[in-house]
Amino acid sequence: MSFEKIVECVPNFSEGRNGKVIEKIADAFRVDGVKLLDYSADVDHNRSVFTVAGEPTELAEAVINAVGVAKDNIDLTKQSGEHPRIGAADVVPFVPIKNVSVEETVELSRFVGQQIATRHGVPVYLYEKSATAANRVNLADIRKGQFEGLSEKMKAEEWKPDFGNSEPHPTAGATVVGCRPFLVAFNVNLDTPDEEIATKIARRVRFINGGLRFVKALGVKLNSRNVAQVTMNLTDYTKTPVYAAFEAVKMEARRYGVNVIGTEIIGLIPQQALLDCVEYYLQIENFSSDKVLENNL
Amino acid sequence: MSFEKIVECVPNFSEGRNGKVIEKIADAFRVDGVKLLDYSADVDHNRSVFTVAGEPTELAEAVINAVGVAKDNIDLTKQSGEHPRIGAADVVPFVPIKNVSVEETVELSRFVGQQIATRHGVPVYLYEKSATAANRVNLADIRKGQFEGLSEKMKAEEWKPDFGNSEPHPTAGATVVGCRPFLVAFNVNLDTPDEEIATKIARRVRFINGGLRFVKALGVKLNSRNVAQVTMNLTDYTKTPVYAAFEAVKMEARRYGVNVIGTEIIGLIPQQALLDCVEYYLQIENFSSDKVLENNL
Repeated sequence: MSFEKIVECVPNFSEGRNGKVIEKIADAFRVDGVKLLDYSADVDHNRSVFTVAGEPTELAEAVINAVGVAKDNIDLTKQSGEHPRIGAADVVPFVPIKNVSVEETVELSRFVGQQIATRHGVPVYLYEKSATAANRVNLADIRKGQFEGLSEKMKAEEWKPDFGNSEPHPTAGATVVGCRPFLVAFNVNLDTPDEEIATKIARRVRFINGGLRFVKALGVKLNSRNVAQVTMNLTDYTKTPVYAAFEAVKMEARRYGVNVIGTEIIGLIPQQALLDCVEYYLQIENFSSDKVLENNL
Repeated sequence: MSFEKIVECVPNFSEGRNGKVIEKIADAFRVDGVKLLDYSADVDHNRSVFTVAGEPTELAEAVINAVGVAKDNIDLTKQSGEHPRIGAADVVPFVPIKNVSVEETVELSRFVGQQIATRHGVPVYLYEKSATAANRVNLADIRKGQFEGLSEKMKAEEWKPDFGNSEPHPTAGATVVGCRPFLVAFNVNLDTPDEEIATKIARRVRFINGGLRFVKALGVKLNSRNVAQVTMNLTDYTKTPVYAAFEAVKMEARRYGVNVIGTEIIGLIPQQALLDCVEYYLQIENFSSDKVLENNL
């Protein structure tokens, strides 16, 4: 790999309409040591999402700069859209990908949060694995009340930010930063058009109803193909591997005499998530990612 | 990847005892654009094997230089060992790994062969996928008679070398160069100590007895663990994938009531060989190696 260590970042900005601003943000990621993998903007949500990855130090600097661009160019007092938000740079999740631990990534997110507060005057909340209190783990809890309610919310001791002052930046609000696991989007297509069966399977395999710890699932119908699908988000593949979610769906499908006709991976997936599956299915005893030829180059 | 295109080379040199010579050869591979992954020498065989990989152009140059070092430092008129050989640099296989076709790799092997003849005065035979005649596909056929018989052998029209003169280099003999597929060494351990069962399974799955086209297999006993093993060489994983060989072993094992307790990958394996297995077992419809996050960096 050209990068020794790899961290991914998927920052969300509250601008989905002004192409010039979106490009200015994108430019912040076009630097050495960082790769801009993807970005897309939604007009209705008035929001843009960037997928970037790179060496931790270089990535951190690029992200801090991008948040500065957002602060200078997005005015939340004039912004509206369907998507809830408390900041110009709304949420900045960091994801450990390669040769980087969760602990290091939490540390990186703390550094970035502290720099955003210091350099840009935007208060920062740490969330997910970087959270400093139970009520700050979930993004929805932090974002409740949105930008418009933030000034009042921040007066409470429990909503004192992790970095910066206890009042929002006047136009850029606050930013939520943290480390979370990689999210794998994995869909399983069934040989039935019956959405109800997919829904029943989804309920069995997902965490919320007693299934696997890091599986979110829904049953949907793909009208174009006339097949039902179990659509899943695997929120921590290191603990609930892809093969475990897949085998759970097949196991539950059996009671309906339903078979899997295929699966889909949406977006990118870390190599390790796939290697965990090969290791399981081929029953490899002595496996490690060092066995992969390309990983030695 | 730091390398855009990757070719592997596994050259064999007829020196397994003189560490200074082996190090001189190794030094030829310590250059930009090339990575020396592994090298080992066998005293009894009096032979050393290098595993190197890199960008095609840089790799070719390093290999040509290494063959020159071997020519200058290994004298076959004084060399003996258990392993058959016709050259100081005996055989130089090139293996396409990433973003390189078989055709390009054949072309690369032809270039290297031509340069070895021109620069070092060592005649070259092309073998495997680079062979120019049916009797030159197999290394054993070319090497038959060894260095000692080479001068006589080369007088026959059918053994005129592909590059260089029809007589051996006086001390360095001739070199065999060509493109071959990556060889995956894959062993399957059974829940029986009965070597005979492993042998019967090996006979069923291997090409020579009617099994899969690119599988070589043997039954052996692992005394240290008291288990029988089917040990396989998969000589072209792009055509006989690892999962196909594995499932064939499991299918044959069933008739003996025998199960697989684990498998082993010996040495390195290209990422694609593993991705082909994930794609099969997870039944992924829209898969390509571009889905792997790291492959986009």
